[in-house]
Amino acid sequence: MENIFAKRMDNVPSSFISEILKLIDDTEIISFAGGLPNKDLFPVKEIRNAANYQLENYGTEILQYSTTEGYLPLREFIAERYNKNKNLNISAENVLITHGSQQALDLIGKVFLNDNDAVAIEEPGYLGAIQCLSIFSKNFVPIKLENDGLNLEELHIAYENFSPKIIYTVPNFQNPTGISYSFEKRNKIVDLLKSYNTFIIEDDPYGELRYEDEEIESFGKLLPEQTILLGSFSKIVAPGFRIGWLIAPDKIMDKFVIAKQAADLHSNYVGQRIIYQYLKDTDLDKHILDIKATYNSQRLTMIESIERYFPKSVEFTKPNGGMFLWVTLPKNISAVNLLNHSIEKKVAFVPGDPFYVKKSDVNTLRLNYSCSDEKTIEEGIKRLAICIKELIK
Amino acid sequence: MENIFAKRMDNVPSSFISEILKLIDDTEIISFAGGLPNKDLFPVKEIRNAANYQLENYGTEILQYSTTEGYLPLREFIAERYNKNKNLNISAENVLITHGSQQALDLIGKVFLNDNDAVAIEEPGYLGAIQCLSIFSKNFVPIKLENDGLNLEELHIAYENFSPKIIYTVPNFQNPTGISYSFEKRNKIVDLLKSYNTFIIEDDPYGELRYEDEEIESFGKLLPEQTILLGSFSKIVAPGFRIGWLIAPDKIMDKFVIAKQAADLHSNYVGQRIIYQYLKDTDLDKHILDIKATYNSQRLTMIESIERYFPKSVEFTKPNGGMFLWVTLPKNISAVNLLNHSIEKKVAFVPGDPFYVKKSDVNTLRLNYSCSDEKTIEEGIKRLAICIKELIK
Repeated sequence: MENIFAKRMDNVPSSFISEILKLIDDTEIISFAGGLPNKDLFPVKEIRNAANYQLENYGTEILQYSTTEGYLPLREFIAERYNKNKNLNISAENVLITHGSQQALDLIGKVFLNDNDAVAIEEPGYLGAIQCLSIFSKNFVPIKLENDGLNLEELHIAYENFSPKIIYTVPNFQNPTGISYSFEKRNKIVDLLKSYNTFIIEDDPYGELRYEDEEIESFGKLLPEQTILLGSFSKIVAPGFRIGWLIAPDKIMDKFVIAKQAADLHSNYVGQRIIYQYLKDTDLDKHILDIKATYNSQRLTMIESIERYFPKSVEFTKPNGGMFLWVTLPKNISAVNLLNHSIEKKVAFVPGDPFYVKKSDVNTLRLNYSCSDEKTIEEGIKRLAICIKELIK
Repeated sequence: MENIFAKRMDNVPSSFISEILKLIDDTEIISFAGGLPNKDLFPVKEIRNAANYQLENYGTEILQYSTTEGYLPLREFIAERYNKNKNLNISAENVLITHGSQQALDLIGKVFLNDNDAVAIEEPGYLGAIQCLSIFSKNFVPIKLENDGLNLEELHIAYENFSPKIIYTVPNFQNPTGISYSFEKRNKIVDLLKSYNTFIIEDDPYGELRYEDEEIESFGKLLPEQTILLGSFSKIVAPGFRIGWLIAPDKIMDKFVIAKQAADLHSNYVGQRIIYQYLKDTDLDKHILDIKATYNSQRLTMIESIERYFPKSVEFTKPNGGMFLWVTLPKNISAVNLLNHSIEKKVAFVPGDPFYVKKSDVNTLRLNYSCSDEKTIEEGIKRLAICIKELIK
């Protein structure tokens, strides 16, 4: 039986997080393990109205097959929002609606990667990208992520020695670390990449969830001909529709459309139409302000609780946006070991392991603050601190 | 720029049908070219009620991320329907919800096909399968489709010489021909395949649209350990949700779940829940009877009109189910050439070319009867007959 499968399926990491979530299927557990948006903030009533309006007025149309590229008014909305908010110059023709931005990663792997093509990726990096792209090539070149973005020396060496076809980045409030690239670092990365035949993937699911400071220019602005932008409604409206997008330069757009058509003909049209109606009828910016107010309070509570309860030898990031922060334990402390202890105290998180391509049993871990209220966050961090102190002893 | 793309994207056929549909974006044209279900039969009101019920009672839940495998009660519904209607023995654990059954093809290509692995396929065969699988391997072995199923001699030679990893079939009311495999042929195919390390893909989007005769046993019944069943709600409820499924034996299920998770995390959950609610609240069998009544009248009108108007040298299939019939023109007549003429008379169809892996400028064509009323069908066939007669002269 083994040799019936394609080689690409060998050693694809299965979802570490799903496994953890199964383990801790216990409602008493305080979980900082998930990466979900807070369901209490979903605009349920508005979406119900939008669904009703669309089904009442365009029922037979929205239930039918549709175009591969996606619903044009929705693509126009997305393009205009980038152009207005980020001062880009995107046309709806360059927007492809995908089945969540995870599908965009699959299309990218398909379109670019031969078996052993090099892929540069942040270390630590988004595990969904590692899992998805590893189906197409196992040749990852991890580039250390520092507090202001990629390590330039490692980036330079990676491009000189391995010529990566693509580099995968989450420049704003990265998953898992919460780190954002500085303006200076972005410009230096652009200077380096523009002399290579490569594309930079700018995955930006959290960019609109900024709690402090000013927006920083996008790679899509600084290097438009070599940037593929990924985005999603999952964190700013709701993930259940699986509606995301990919924005690519003209010269590579056709390949993506062919790959998308072959993959699933088109993204679910009912969902596209309902989201479009919702966007038309409501004030998305106002809704995002509400999300940000809640997440920001939870973020501050988590930071304050860590400062109060964790031993000083533990380091952590203080992201100015997004849903996560990243903890570095003293060198000899294993995060997996910590999880085994903390589960007994009914607190969960994701150990750093699945975010590394070539490391395991690491001393880092990811904490999510979007799904727990402030009281729960304080209690969870307090319990986690007890476990850490026991291990440090 | 060229060498930046993966080799798998070379020579992937783009959608012939999309191109035709763009050409004939003219409401005055009588089109037998599409492959769409008839939108007037979509249960819009019932789906609106289902959407309302789900959003009212489970709003925050259905808008959240969900499990890769799909909504368990929906998977149970699908398994039970197979077990009841086709006397199979399927467990919900073996049902994976996909983003339309087209995505199932993508997952199959990903899980099984190395670059040059052989894929056996009906000739003519479903163009969506040809397009999708050609991303993973270009090594197609076409097997002639006869009036009762695959040509056994060609099948035997294909397996002896090329060891196909998978064989793709649409045994009921095939797209494009409308042909169904006989019970005898199915058994002979099973006898042949069971001694090979291969999987048979039984794609069955039209199986429930039977207008005559009795259901014939499925490969899923005759050879369960080597059959992958694909199905979809697109033809029996509505395609706009993109909800289909793949059913596979235990021993290969894990690989599909990993591939699905990497591809898009999970199928759109809102759509799964709305369809589930619809299925719970309504009588699907009764709804399918309504669809069948309409399509059957249209089918009979098309058959009668062809018999009345087409020259006797033109052959055609008389399918007892599905949405298509298949026309064979006299040998020297090109279907593409006929289309050029018929477009002027404002009638469209799909020339056979995209349904062949290794042939072009063929004398065959596909006619769809699900989307035109009886008067329109008669008028369209009449006009097409005039064009054919002009070419035969």
